[in-house]
Amino acid sequence: MRTYLECIPCFVRQALDAARLATSDLAVHERVLRETLRWASEMSFDQSPPSMGQRIHRLLREVSENPDPYRDAKRQANEVAMGWLPNLRERIGAAPDPLAAAMRVAIAGNIIDLGCRTEVSEEEIRAAITRAFADPLAPEAVADFREALRSASRILYLADNAGEIVLDRLLVEQLPLERVTLAVRGGPVINDATRADADLVGLTSLVKVVDNGSDAPGTILEDCSPAFRELFERADLLIAKGQGNYETLSEAGRNIYFLLQAKCPVIARDIGCTVGKAVLRHARGAVG
Amino acid sequence: MRTYLECIPCFVRQALDAARLATSDLAVHERVLRETLRWASEMSFDQSPPSMGQRIHRLLREVSENPDPYRDAKRQANEVAMGWLPNLRERIGAAPDPLAAAMRVAIAGNIIDLGCRTEVSEEEIRAAITRAFADPLAPEAVADFREALRSASRILYLADNAGEIVLDRLLVEQLPLERVTLAVRGGPVINDATRADADLVGLTSLVKVVDNGSDAPGTILEDCSPAFRELFERADLLIAKGQGNYETLSEAGRNIYFLLQAKCPVIARDIGCTVGKAVLRHARGAVG
Repeated sequence: MRTYLECIPCFVRQALDAARLATSDLAVHERVLRETLRWASEMSFDQSPPSMGQRIHRLLREVSENPDPYRDAKRQANEVAMGWLPNLRERIGAAPDPLAAAMRVAIAGNIIDLGCRTEVSEEEIRAAITRAFADPLAPEAVADFREALRSASRILYLADNAGEIVLDRLLVEQLPLERVTLAVRGGPVINDATRADADLVGLTSLVKVVDNGSDAPGTILEDCSPAFRELFERADLLIAKGQGNYETLSEAGRNIYFLLQAKCPVIARDIGCTVGKAVLRHARGAVG
Repeated sequence: MRTYLECIPCFVRQALDAARLATSDLAVHERVLRETLRWASEMSFDQSPPSMGQRIHRLLREVSENPDPYRDAKRQANEVAMGWLPNLRERIGAAPDPLAAAMRVAIAGNIIDLGCRTEVSEEEIRAAITRAFADPLAPEAVADFREALRSASRILYLADNAGEIVLDRLLVEQLPLERVTLAVRGGPVINDATRADADLVGLTSLVKVVDNGSDAPGTILEDCSPAFRELFERADLLIAKGQGNYETLSEAGRNIYFLLQAKCPVIARDIGCTVGKAVLRHARGAVG
């Protein structure tokens, strides 16, 4: 997805919010804001939004001398969601279609995105999970996904955020584990999940886990490691969580199921849904 | 008031919203947005926010070749408010303290500000007026203002927006008319009132009306005409409507009563009130 003009005011706001979260040093706030403005004034709008996010958050980590400003937020989100895991696993197991329920819960988890907003409360996450059970996905869409799972040999699951990755685990548990590889970001950026989060929530002992070698809040293939790119090319089914992965891969021309909450008007318009909607979208493409 | 860091994302959003209102030409939207970003990246934050507003809206009028993009919005706001005038005048006349009621209604009118938001609905204006009658100003503050009016020889009333200026007329009608001069902007900028609006709503036949010679959405004295500056210097009581006049004159060191709706968190924090609050604030200063 390209960068739309409406993304620009949002980048600027995000840069300021993130700088304030990373440090109380006002000079850092101003510097990150001014650089973001300058970059945005010159950027190509053909890039996807996470390219700018990557640049802003790299600068922020550098000038704030804080290599992982969202560390506490990530730990807290993981801990809260881990507390819910046994109960959610039981409810998913008791659901008429556990795969469908797990997909919907994993989508709900995508509201834990600190790029779109600086804070997401525990109540909001709980409410999203409640809606997940009350408002299931369309049965045809789930049937299509089930069939894709059945026929795929190499499934690559692209995780998105910390906290959310706990709910991803519930979906991974419904997948053919031996055929699944889960990918996380190559380094800290916003509250995106890295290998440490996959470890913490027990995914590493369940499936193969790789990092993509990139610190972009999405999957910018040119920026990923050769090893990840090879996995990506060879996968015949991709499951991509969240807005950042949608923004960077919506035109990848691959067989990808995007699972996300549409959290901003730009994404909602691009997808053709309303803001707040739980989205399961299948992009067809060449099999690798 | 200086420009706070939070003003910057808001400038960027305003620039894009305004460009879209002025023209459907996407190249204009992009150019106005990129220039705003570049200017903001380099600006001095010691300037008040309306300096940047002036620059953005000048560029917008030039590149859109539309000398008054808010013309229709201003006309409509004036017409709607003029329709309410007889009834409001009657209610003010019947109020226990007509001056206090007129002050409060004039403040309510300040929600018609298309700088803060691109659209304000008729229902929102009605609701603000309803609140004006239900939630009067503190009697001591009104008594202080009444005393200031009594002792002033030269009262300069700085209007803010079209539509709002109709409700200003109700307050002007409560003032000692022969001692009042009303000032409007020197040229179109956002939906700020100009001489045409003062004419249309009948203020020109009620009091002396001057324009300030500037197209800033506020009162940047260095940018105003010598004639206006002389009036400003000689006035011994200033009544300044709206956020733009507050932002540009809050540190002018003059005897100014600011009447406004606090419509953004930055202004609210600067004033020390909550967003949405009706504000009557007296800045004491040298008598001209």
